[in-house]
Amino acid sequence: MNNFTFYNPTRVVFGKDQLKELHNLVPADANILIIYGGGSAVRSGLIDAVKEELSKGNRKISTFGGIEPNPRFLTLMKAIEQARKDGVDYLLAVGGGSVMDGTKFIALAAAGEDFVGKEEEILSFGFGGVPANKALPLGTVCTLPATGSEMNNGGVISNGHDKLFFHSPITFPQFSIIDPSYTMTLPERQVANGIVDTFVHVAEQYVTYPAEGRFQDRTAEGILQTLIEIGETTLNDPQDYDARANLVWCATMALNGLIGSGVPQDWSAHMLGHEITALYEIDHGRTLAMTLPAIWKVRKEQKKAKLLQYAERVWGLTEGSEEARIEEAIDRTEAFFGSLGVPTRFSRYDLGEEVVEKVIANLEKHKMTALSEHGDMTLDVSRKVLRAAL
Amino acid sequence: MNNFTFYNPTRVVFGKDQLKELHNLVPADANILIIYGGGSAVRSGLIDAVKEELSKGNRKISTFGGIEPNPRFLTLMKAIEQARKDGVDYLLAVGGGSVMDGTKFIALAAAGEDFVGKEEEILSFGFGGVPANKALPLGTVCTLPATGSEMNNGGVISNGHDKLFFHSPITFPQFSIIDPSYTMTLPERQVANGIVDTFVHVAEQYVTYPAEGRFQDRTAEGILQTLIEIGETTLNDPQDYDARANLVWCATMALNGLIGSGVPQDWSAHMLGHEITALYEIDHGRTLAMTLPAIWKVRKEQKKAKLLQYAERVWGLTEGSEEARIEEAIDRTEAFFGSLGVPTRFSRYDLGEEVVEKVIANLEKHKMTALSEHGDMTLDVSRKVLRAAL
Repeated sequence: MNNFTFYNPTRVVFGKDQLKELHNLVPADANILIIYGGGSAVRSGLIDAVKEELSKGNRKISTFGGIEPNPRFLTLMKAIEQARKDGVDYLLAVGGGSVMDGTKFIALAAAGEDFVGKEEEILSFGFGGVPANKALPLGTVCTLPATGSEMNNGGVISNGHDKLFFHSPITFPQFSIIDPSYTMTLPERQVANGIVDTFVHVAEQYVTYPAEGRFQDRTAEGILQTLIEIGETTLNDPQDYDARANLVWCATMALNGLIGSGVPQDWSAHMLGHEITALYEIDHGRTLAMTLPAIWKVRKEQKKAKLLQYAERVWGLTEGSEEARIEEAIDRTEAFFGSLGVPTRFSRYDLGEEVVEKVIANLEKHKMTALSEHGDMTLDVSRKVLRAAL
Repeated sequence: MNNFTFYNPTRVVFGKDQLKELHNLVPADANILIIYGGGSAVRSGLIDAVKEELSKGNRKISTFGGIEPNPRFLTLMKAIEQARKDGVDYLLAVGGGSVMDGTKFIALAAAGEDFVGKEEEILSFGFGGVPANKALPLGTVCTLPATGSEMNNGGVISNGHDKLFFHSPITFPQFSIIDPSYTMTLPERQVANGIVDTFVHVAEQYVTYPAEGRFQDRTAEGILQTLIEIGETTLNDPQDYDARANLVWCATMALNGLIGSGVPQDWSAHMLGHEITALYEIDHGRTLAMTLPAIWKVRKEQKKAKLLQYAERVWGLTEGSEEARIEEAIDRTEAFFGSLGVPTRFSRYDLGEEVVEKVIANLEKHKMTALSEHGDMTLDVSRKVLRAAL
């Protein structure tokens, strides 16, 4: 097992009707900015309910709506301006991954004087932590757990055709209220994307090479098994609270640092996926359903031991040659994504060979030339992966 | 799944040679009291190494040694007096569960003026959280993870023949340095006890009744499988770093709130075990090896569904009648404890029928008359359990 530090101070308040705890979680005298996405949070009455809970204290309450999926730098700059102008001292994200990610960025930029006029620099840190020492405190009311943002300190921001990841030790939410009931009215497509996103978050931290992380492996396998068990149920019966609760808790656990502690991590499926979303506006989860199986096909030698473990422990495959078991496991993974209505090929989006060099050019631009747990996934390997997903 | 709150702000710094991080984890101007147990921490050079790291700042450093296994109230009172007298503002526990538990108690009593002269009251809260709003900050250098104390907010303190559990939201360690190498010089008996203790921590949160906590169940099963996989190896080859690392991380994960969130919990094996330790000074882990299988035998109807799940997923038992599978799973559990050299019967300690009413009297005294996940384990049921362990 590798050395590691695990630290996650987010307080998760999970379950039915937990919004009633909001009043106890936000300082009673906060000057709070509620940040949300599209109109559905307003139409569903959630924003009003949030305001009502917050009005139980002596708080100044303002709102900023319109954070889009794949939150955009220029939109966030407007929120940052508003937060600075109003002297906001607490942020509350009400929404899914995009709103939560965007709120973390706002928290850094609105509080850190070093960043005034240099907000684009924050984005330039890529995978490195943002060197900020001040951020507004933030909490979330999470309506779509899939990105794991409700219990981690990272975010992904879009700017032009760039999609960039940032993180900082000071952008953990102080709390996240996670009520699985909020997901019941989501479009089926978004829930399916969330299941795939969660699945791939786990796979990126698990299908690498053996590193004697037994707790981490078993926990990763447990999440994958759970997603397979409840995936179709929760799509077919959105009112099944327990299925949703299990999906939601798995989504949070998949990307809060736990299963990746002390073991190698890949993330190449995400890096390729981000470029595909930036170029073609294909939903994040849907890009991963294309990139993950393609990576496994091209890199089955490098990932052999863990693919065999995955085949056995997640899919119960113990018979046949090693090659056959690995292929069957990849087939079943693609079939699982398919059962959720999520395609695994570019052709299903009427895209073909032309995507390969465009994505490669973007990977080069963003210095993604040595991806994967081994750092050996060159542009040429990425080219093969993209071709395998055509 | 039940509603829950999960909150655990302890920073875990895990792995080889992580003591070098200590200087960065404790405030540079702290007036720090190092708390430890027997002489082995001194003889091994660990206390000197800790002091050397701490001396890199401008800290005032003092020590308090002699915290015994099952830390005693009167010993802790001496440490509390010393901490108050010296104006200590930070505590560092260097040791295993007893030292860490004792340090949490010292943290509450030394900082909370409300408690001066009323320290025994702190103990009287039993399973309720201690209503303190002030505690000294504390960190740990953990040499024997088994109790989970390095990443939770509870502790067990002995006073006379009483053994009582306390917890408080303000007694999480700020950090815990966990270097599995420290466990390599431990007596085999202590390591074996730690494996059993960890196993039973998991079982108490898992073998209850089905509650749709799929992540929790899979993670619990993963810890149990790991303990079974590495138990004998780590006893036979103490120098096997990876085996120790897996044991140690499982021990921490078994009792940090994670697997018990949103699901029912039992803890009757611990409640009976605590009384047995208090009366007969049998090591904590060894009492659990007697009480857990006995509880399962007496309460196999109430726990039927989860015992069957345990039989299948942890031991791979899928053939035969339900009754036979459950019996086989209990047999294998006892055999596993036996393989670690830990007895599962009172007779192995030359104790017999006389223990039954003595333990029952103590349970009654401590109001442990409605134990288990159903709250239906009366003194009469406990009597049957004790007899099943004779």
